[in-house]
Amino acid sequence: MTEKNYVPWDLMDRFLTESFIWYGVPEAEAKICADVLIESDRRGIESHGCNRFKPIYIDRIVAGIQQPVTKIDILKETPTTAVLDANDGMGMVVSHKAMTMAIEKAKTYGLSMVAVRNSTHYGIAGYWATMATKAGLIGITGTNARPSVAPTFGVDNMMGTNPLTVGFPTDEDFPFMLDCATPITQRGKIEYFARMGKPTPAGMVIGQDGSAMTDSEEILVALTQGKAALAPLGGIGEELGGYKGYGYTTVVEVLSAALQAGSFLKMLTDFDETGKRKPYHLGHFFLVIDPEAFMGLDSFKKTCGDILRELRASKKAAGHDRIYTAGEKEYLVWLERKDKGIPVSESVQKELIAVRDAIGAGYRFPFE
Amino acid sequence: MTEKNYVPWDLMDRFLTESFIWYGVPEAEAKICADVLIESDRRGIESHGCNRFKPIYIDRIVAGIQQPVTKIDILKETPTTAVLDANDGMGMVVSHKAMTMAIEKAKTYGLSMVAVRNSTHYGIAGYWATMATKAGLIGITGTNARPSVAPTFGVDNMMGTNPLTVGFPTDEDFPFMLDCATPITQRGKIEYFARMGKPTPAGMVIGQDGSAMTDSEEILVALTQGKAALAPLGGIGEELGGYKGYGYTTVVEVLSAALQAGSFLKMLTDFDETGKRKPYHLGHFFLVIDPEAFMGLDSFKKTCGDILRELRASKKAAGHDRIYTAGEKEYLVWLERKDKGIPVSESVQKELIAVRDAIGAGYRFPFE
Repeated sequence: MTEKNYVPWDLMDRFLTESFIWYGVPEAEAKICADVLIESDRRGIESHGCNRFKPIYIDRIVAGIQQPVTKIDILKETPTTAVLDANDGMGMVVSHKAMTMAIEKAKTYGLSMVAVRNSTHYGIAGYWATMATKAGLIGITGTNARPSVAPTFGVDNMMGTNPLTVGFPTDEDFPFMLDCATPITQRGKIEYFARMGKPTPAGMVIGQDGSAMTDSEEILVALTQGKAALAPLGGIGEELGGYKGYGYTTVVEVLSAALQAGSFLKMLTDFDETGKRKPYHLGHFFLVIDPEAFMGLDSFKKTCGDILRELRASKKAAGHDRIYTAGEKEYLVWLERKDKGIPVSESVQKELIAVRDAIGAGYRFPFE
Repeated sequence: MTEKNYVPWDLMDRFLTESFIWYGVPEAEAKICADVLIESDRRGIESHGCNRFKPIYIDRIVAGIQQPVTKIDILKETPTTAVLDANDGMGMVVSHKAMTMAIEKAKTYGLSMVAVRNSTHYGIAGYWATMATKAGLIGITGTNARPSVAPTFGVDNMMGTNPLTVGFPTDEDFPFMLDCATPITQRGKIEYFARMGKPTPAGMVIGQDGSAMTDSEEILVALTQGKAALAPLGGIGEELGGYKGYGYTTVVEVLSAALQAGSFLKMLTDFDETGKRKPYHLGHFFLVIDPEAFMGLDSFKKTCGDILRELRASKKAAGHDRIYTAGEKEYLVWLERKDKGIPVSESVQKELIAVRDAIGAGYRFPFE
């Protein structure tokens, strides 16, 4: 990617923040939303960064299925728990509030958990777990999502890609951060295979007859029509442990909905029975654990760091000269990008220009 | 299996309890140990039931690497957390204590977590999560284990099979109970393939060069020599999400050790540097969440049950007439076995007779 396709961090931050404000998000909350998107680009998680800005946030605000002002009701609160209702506001805003509450409660009581209802897309799950690790705490979070994953022995797209994300503070320069969806992959990866003209590896996607689909173009059409579903981690059937991946995706589906009496499975679409657009009503959970309530933070960080270092130092497979631990690749991307800015693809460039023009901002992007 | 190979539940309970007592376990604790083993057989988890009784418990007590009397020190306690030291005693006894404490704390404070150090094999993880679900609580537990799993891009057996087990109370006759090791499979499954004369499916086991091993007999030898390792859920490499399974196995490795400043990875063997046998020093964790601290237990059970029922009712893959949810198959095994007793294989029959004769018990098993 040529230099002009990189947008400086501060320009992107200013642009996203100003845009969110223009569309009705209060200033302090717009800053949070912008930072969540930019953090995704800092980590190289292209799928959840500024390329999501227009289609997943701005377009939904414009469509009226997401509210720019996030009215948060506290439905229940105990010393260690809370249930928040986001009233279809910004998922990042309610999640910031939820994790802030969880961190305060965990610092006081050792652990805490906050559930959120009637929310919208909350960005990368790792952003919220990182709030905890920055505070010297263990952060665990998950969210449901529109249905796309089939259960073992099933073919229907029933569950979301439901990330189960875990962050640990360590004695290294970056935390342990397992930030991943529970199925093998998600639609974005199939789109990538299609662009490359490559088949999709067998086992990732299941067709209506229960067998693996591998034609990437065909899969994209079938996914849109609900005639294909993503396979759980471990693949189709039971042979390679697919029921385990299915189990963990179910765990996230339950934790995201059942603690807040919320929507789940096929309810999580943005169309009602008459075909009219409606809010998603997503649910999230945030679980925080304070190592100080056990053998202490320094002890935790040292043991955690030792485990990660020993894993990396272990014997490599032929053709591989490095073993990574979760969060390490994202940290390496940041080191590589911090002076260069955010690489923006051509299709996203068009989206950013469209929003910039819509809000009448005077500045130009490097790629123009 | 013919009728005479089934041992009645009450006879097995009496035999295991009396045996544990004979080997020095106090009566009330012997009852706990027996029940944990029998519960595994109730659920059809053959790998962790009475076939583990002699090699994993009795033989280790006799070898002096596991203490029949479990001296438990409370190293740290807060309203919501605790760290227990089992002093190489019975893993089931300290786990029963840990989960009992966690349940009490969660009932009072909404959630709780207890970490255990210097422990031994704690039986099926699902036993502990079920203590929580029976009390109307969410139970999450994990444990480390002797090293057998390779990290992504690695070939060394670094991590344990580290179960990450989650139980939810539901409005059905049985709880949601995802009780599984985090890698694709474990040694017992390879032994099964070898007995059947079948190859091991590619992707389950990784050889020293990083490629898949499929010769089951060869794998068993190589595993014993440390020249093969189990692959994480998602398989070898990154293509089908192996780094996710590797990540979850790492999460359990960290949570099992770092909260209690305990042993991890290659430390978790029963031999010291000089080849002398030594205790394993395993670590476990128990996390409990009370739905009453959120939107209430009835609401939780209903939503959880609805999710499970909708998953089961969804469209089946060709060749499958049923979709299961986690814990359902184990419940079906119980319904099938409750009037028949425990099926005991010939090799386990010999072990049980050997222990029965050693303790001088007067009764005979049906299979004799």
